[in-house]
Amino acid sequence: MNSFADVPAMIAACGASSGKVYLVGAGPGDPELLTLRAARLLAQAQAVVYDNLVGPEVLALIHPAAQRIYVGKERSRHTMAQEDINALLVRLAGEGLSVVRLKGGDPFIFGRGGEELQVLAAHGVPFEVVPGITAACGAASYAGIPLTHRDYAQSCLFVTGHLKEGGGEMDWAALARPHQTLAIYMGLSMLPSICVRLVESGLSPCMPAAAIEQGTLPGQRVIAATLSTLAAEVAAAGLRSPCLTVVGEVVRLRDQLAWFDAPAMQPRESNLAFTTGA
Amino acid sequence: MNSFADVPAMIAACGASSGKVYLVGAGPGDPELLTLRAARLLAQAQAVVYDNLVGPEVLALIHPAAQRIYVGKERSRHTMAQEDINALLVRLAGEGLSVVRLKGGDPFIFGRGGEELQVLAAHGVPFEVVPGITAACGAASYAGIPLTHRDYAQSCLFVTGHLKEGGGEMDWAALARPHQTLAIYMGLSMLPSICVRLVESGLSPCMPAAAIEQGTLPGQRVIAATLSTLAAEVAAAGLRSPCLTVVGEVVRLRDQLAWFDAPAMQPRESNLAFTTGA
Repeated sequence: MNSFADVPAMIAACGASSGKVYLVGAGPGDPELLTLRAARLLAQAQAVVYDNLVGPEVLALIHPAAQRIYVGKERSRHTMAQEDINALLVRLAGEGLSVVRLKGGDPFIFGRGGEELQVLAAHGVPFEVVPGITAACGAASYAGIPLTHRDYAQSCLFVTGHLKEGGGEMDWAALARPHQTLAIYMGLSMLPSICVRLVESGLSPCMPAAAIEQGTLPGQRVIAATLSTLAAEVAAAGLRSPCLTVVGEVVRLRDQLAWFDAPAMQPRESNLAFTTGA
Repeated sequence: MNSFADVPAMIAACGASSGKVYLVGAGPGDPELLTLRAARLLAQAQAVVYDNLVGPEVLALIHPAAQRIYVGKERSRHTMAQEDINALLVRLAGEGLSVVRLKGGDPFIFGRGGEELQVLAAHGVPFEVVPGITAACGAASYAGIPLTHRDYAQSCLFVTGHLKEGGGEMDWAALARPHQTLAIYMGLSMLPSICVRLVESGLSPCMPAAAIEQGTLPGQRVIAATLSTLAAEVAAAGLRSPCLTVVGEVVRLRDQLAWFDAPAMQPRESNLAFTTGA
């Protein structure tokens, strides 16, 4: 961990007497999708505590004199335990610092932001929340897939694909509804079983479904297929986590509405037949 | 409608030969929650077509020389029919203009953005999508209500409260699930019947629920209650549409995590008893 030798000087320089933590969403990847507030706070914060879903273009907006503290968080190998992150935030704020806690996407959508704030509140640390574009909204927008549409989906359900984490099986009956779009976060390793269970739970095997890798970034790749073919398509294309998976009739609209990623990554019927049949 | 007499001069000045439409989310209200990309596009666009969920602070970012075209959209009294909005966008782009189509929140979450893009695509008009912070994420963040939390909600369902619009009854069985947060858009006029139906469909009458008026704006007001008391509380407080309603155990966290709105608007047990019992 960093030393804090320069903290008193920074406090004196800024005239800060009591610290504060800003829980900030970094958005889905494209740094242009940061909010104005997030960009301003990154330029002003004395310390930024961030994890691995935040890309280098966003980190470039941090003030050069600020402490940058990486606290990791890959699945099943947290670089820093959640309890240690909580303690770190309390300590930094207690030292009088203006601290940005930076999380990918939106901190209140599968970000454990609420848990960190509960610890801050218990310690009397002042805080604010700056929402970010959540991964589903970012990736779907750049993939040309409206999450709702009057003709196809009157609701959208955001879920995580971590079947075993957070306690309990997924609520398949809730997931397999008509006229609803499913946005599944981080579901790539579970993708084959999720697709099978959705069909077993009542969705058509022909239901359109897409996986989006590196959504909103220049390397974005989108595989649009169906529940029966998506897992094989994704494996054939070599997509890697984290991915955002979208299930629902709205995925069809990508044929008309794709605007961001290269045409080569827009599968057509012929491509689908080719890669699936191999 | 505005005249377009100055269009040829603007095209010449910008050297533009073919127009383009940027479908841009204006976010939930606070102009600081605009994305960097949205702010840049507003400062550069030659025409901005916006509706009534976009506030004056956001409109202030539009370039003074740009055409501003208000196309309204209040419930049941659309200032301009959707077909006319579609035609307007096609016409402006056909005149070579750089056009921002500005919508409150995120254009792909209950914004009919997909429908407008389908028309543009059919006419060969180039477009891009700039996602925005959707109202649920903005309002919940500023109300201190995490939409997901490992202990309380592993998923979040976004729905509209317009029972009769868009065809079909709401899917009550999908709405009344445990361990799920419901975010209901624009549901104030339907709030009493929605609360009743959710209880009839299996949710506890004691399930925490909150209504948020003017989320993220200085006038934000939050009423946190339960499914059995929310409608009366909201009526007593005189909340007005548009509101965002959140239903789920996560609403309890507001007691610890509220940070934005005035303490007077944070109902405590005693307040609840007083206003409900009247």
